[in-house]
Formats: sequence, structure tokens, C-alpha cells
Amino acid sequence: MNIVLLGSGKVATHLGRAFKMAGQTIVQVWSRNIEHANELADTVASEAISDIADINRNADLYIIAVKDSAIRDLALTLGLDDKLIVHTSGSTSIQALEGVSSHIGVFYPLQTFSKNRAVDFRQIPIAIEATNPEDLTAIRAIADRLSEKVTELSSAQRKALHVAAVFACNFTNHLMAISQDLLKAENLDFDLIRPLIAETAEKVQLNDPEAVQTGPAVREENEIILSHLEALKERPDLQELYRLLSQSIVNLHKQSRG
Amino acid sequence: MNIVLLGSGKVATHLGRAFKMAGQTIVQVWSRNIEHANELADTVASEAISDIADINRNADLYIIAVKDSAIRDLALTLGLDDKLIVHTSGSTSIQALEGVSSHIGVFYPLQTFSKNRAVDFRQIPIAIEATNPEDLTAIRAIADRLSEKVTELSSAQRKALHVAAVFACNFTNHLMAISQDLLKAENLDFDLIRPLIAETAEKVQLNDPEAVQTGPAVREENEIILSHLEALKERPDLQELYRLLSQSIVNLHKQSRG
Repeated sequence: MNIVLLGSGKVATHLGRAFKMAGQTIVQVWSRNIEHANELADTVASEAISDIADINRNADLYIIAVKDSAIRDLALTLGLDDKLIVHTSGSTSIQALEGVSSHIGVFYPLQTFSKNRAVDFRQIPIAIEATNPEDLTAIRAIADRLSEKVTELSSAQRKALHVAAVFACNFTNHLMAISQDLLKAENLDFDLIRPLIAETAEKVQLNDPEAVQTGPAVREENEIILSHLEALKERPDLQELYRLLSQSIVNLHKQSRG
Repeated sequence: MNIVLLGSGKVATHLGRAFKMAGQTIVQVWSRNIEHANELADTVASEAISDIADINRNADLYIIAVKDSAIRDLALTLGLDDKLIVHTSGSTSIQALEGVSSHIGVFYPLQTFSKNRAVDFRQIPIAIEATNPEDLTAIRAIADRLSEKVTELSSAQRKALHVAAVFACNFTNHLMAISQDLLKAENLDFDLIRPLIAETAEKVQLNDPEAVQTGPAVREENEIILSHLEALKERPDLQELYRLLSQSIVNLHKQSRG
């Protein structure tokens, strides 16, 4: 399987490495910035290009892994109207590729990629989509080589998955950053909290998060909540977050109790 | 070491088990509700009482593990003015025990306890505090038997730690519950997100959360943010959270970039 990878960011990098490890050939890496293209091309033993005119027109699959707002324009400049072209975005509909080629699809690996951290791709869910059954079969065959967790999702479902991931991953990471900030202000090390974070993530691997909710809000311990708001008095932004999240916890659990 | 445990909730239960495993003797478990006292007393081979008048007056340590608002009243009814009495609360000052005994302190294990989940107590940070050095030494000796991570913190530091833990643990867990809710609405399984949650927690074990922030907000991808807000249009409460958390991410990272 010969693949052209368009993009050089985190998703492109992790996908490139994963394909390489799965024995596939990345024939080209394109990036607007040739240095970025070179860097990724080096790690996946590929050719680097920065001019779309130089694109290899005989590959089996073209993967567009650029920022969402650039997908359609880039796809239209390819001029590959009978090749299989996929994008890798959670929140962009397959419609962004409409009219680009007669073989289009989506290949969305759901993971929080950091450039310098290896991930076990076999465990990463990949959401796939295509407009015709043959393309879906082809995309599934490719995805199956990388991951044990390949699922067909509609564009609407994929977007819901992305939003859910933003809450469960991006926003939670930010709350941890806030947590570290609060500790720093009292000269406390984030290591004090790290075991707690590990346990929090561990608990929801086998349980529903709602069922293992702990803390002052779910117990409606208003005195503690007020004393925490008081402790945050010099951080009105964090007070607002604290208040809103506590209220959200109370509401969810009231609703569940009926 | 003979210990009387006052309380039968999650903290009392986990502490009781941990002391038992560390070879200490829980001579009594007190709870207002005798059935709760019995349940915990059974698992730690102890006597259950529900009347404070029956309290064993010869123990070495009295641990008050009840809800914050009940600590002081319970402590005052003990009538043990020369015994070592500690509470286990993150957000309650040591002052709550002032005048109760000449030997008072705090013994706060920082963990998210679920009743049915065993935890490795050796890795749980325990924040300790006392008003005089001898009591601090005694409390430290006890804490060292349970955990490798014993730290002396002032009441103000301990409260900051508790607030930080609410952000890093309670609030993050709630965001995971929201995430599951959003998936359910599209008939998607939470298993899709679980590997991502594990990776999110794993990443911050060795990195600062701020340094590994991912997602649309930190990249200031406003089109994606707007499309997510649109996707949440039937959940104004979640829209508000999404907006506020995204703004908070943008602000933090603007600030860091100077």
C-alpha cells in the first residue's frame, strides 16, 4: 500500500509512524513548509515535497492531515479526481471532500497526540466513513492494520465523539493545569496530585464516571464549597469555573436521583 | 498502637483497612448509625459503638473522619482533653480542634476513595499538621506506617491542596460524565473515550499539564470551537461550560507566551 501523507503536524506524524511500523510505504510527505516535510519524511523513510505540483499521482491513498479549515482548499488543489482521498478530522464532515474525487472518506484516529510521546496505536479507536461501500471496505482494511478498534461513524457521530473527547481530555487536562497553578501559589509540588489523577482515570476504566463521582459538590457540602470559593477570591475566573462545575455536578446527580 | 476511629464513611473505611493492614489495632469504630459502625468494625476486627459515652478512653489515637461540619461538635463531646485527636479533612483548619485536647492534629490522606475499590495506600500523600512538635512527631510516625508520602502542611496549604484536588479529580471526573452523556445521545459507547482518558492521565505523570495541552482551544481554532458550540445547541449548560473552559485555556496559554 503506497500512501501520500499531506501534513506534518502531530496527527500526520503519529499516523506516518504507525503506517511505517505496520509495514506500509509512505511514498511522499507534503507540507507547505519543506523543513517540516523533511523532518517527518526522514522518520518514515519517505520523500519530502512542499509543492503540490510534485505530488506522486500513483499512490493508493492520500491522507489529508492538516488543520480543519485548510482541508477543502488543499483537497481541491490536488487534482486527483479518481484517487482515494481521506481527511483525519473529528469535526469536519465528509462533505468537505465532496467533488474532490469519486473516492472520498474519513480516517479519524481518536487520540491526544504529543509529538514526543509514543502511543500504542493498536488501542486507538479509528472512526471511518466513506460515501460508497467499496471505499469503506478499502478504508477499513487500512485502518485494521493500525488498530483493533475500527468503527464506522457518520459525520454527526464523529463530531459528537470529538466534542465528547474535548470534554474528557482537553478540558480535563486544562483543569489539571489549573490545579498545578493553585499548588504553585502555595509552594506545593504537583507530584502531590499526580497519584490522584492516575486513580481518577483508572476508576473510570471499569466504572461509569457518574457512579464514582466524589467531592464536595456531589455531597452538596455547601460549607466546603463556600470555603473553597473564599480561598479562590483572588482568582475570579477560577471562582466562576468552580461555581459552574459544582452546579453542573449537583444538577446531574439530582437528575439521576430523579 | 491502639486507635479509635470515629466515622464510617469512605475515608474512615479506607483508613481503617490501611491501619489494619499495617498491623495497627482499631479498638473501636464509632458511628451515629450502629449498622454502619458494625459494618466497618467487622472488616477491621473491631468493636462497634454508636454512643459516645461508650468510648474507650485509653487509646493512643482518636481519628475523626466525619463530614467537615460535624468535626468540632463531635470532638467537643469526646471529653478527652489529654488524648491525641486528629481530623482527616482537607478543608478544615486545625483550629476546629482547638480547646478540645492539648494534643491535636490533622491527618489528611489525599485520595479519591470509592468504597469498593482497593487503593495502594503506600502511594497516597498524607498531609499532617499539629500544634506542637511532639504531636507532629507522633502523627508522622503513624502516617509513615501507611504511606511513603507524608508531608507537613499548614492548614492554608492543605486547603489549597484540597481545592487543587477538586479541580484535578472531582471536576475532571464530572467532565468525563458529561462526555459519556454526549456519547449516549449519539448511541456511542464510552469505551471509545476510555483509552484517551488513560493517555491523558498518563501524559501528566511526567509532564506539566500546561505543556501537553491539546485541542481546538489551545490552537485557537475558532471554526471548530463554533461548530462544537453549535453541536451543543440543545444543551445550553454545556455550551456555557465549553465556552468558559475554552476561554480559560486561551487565557492561560496567552499568559504563558507572555
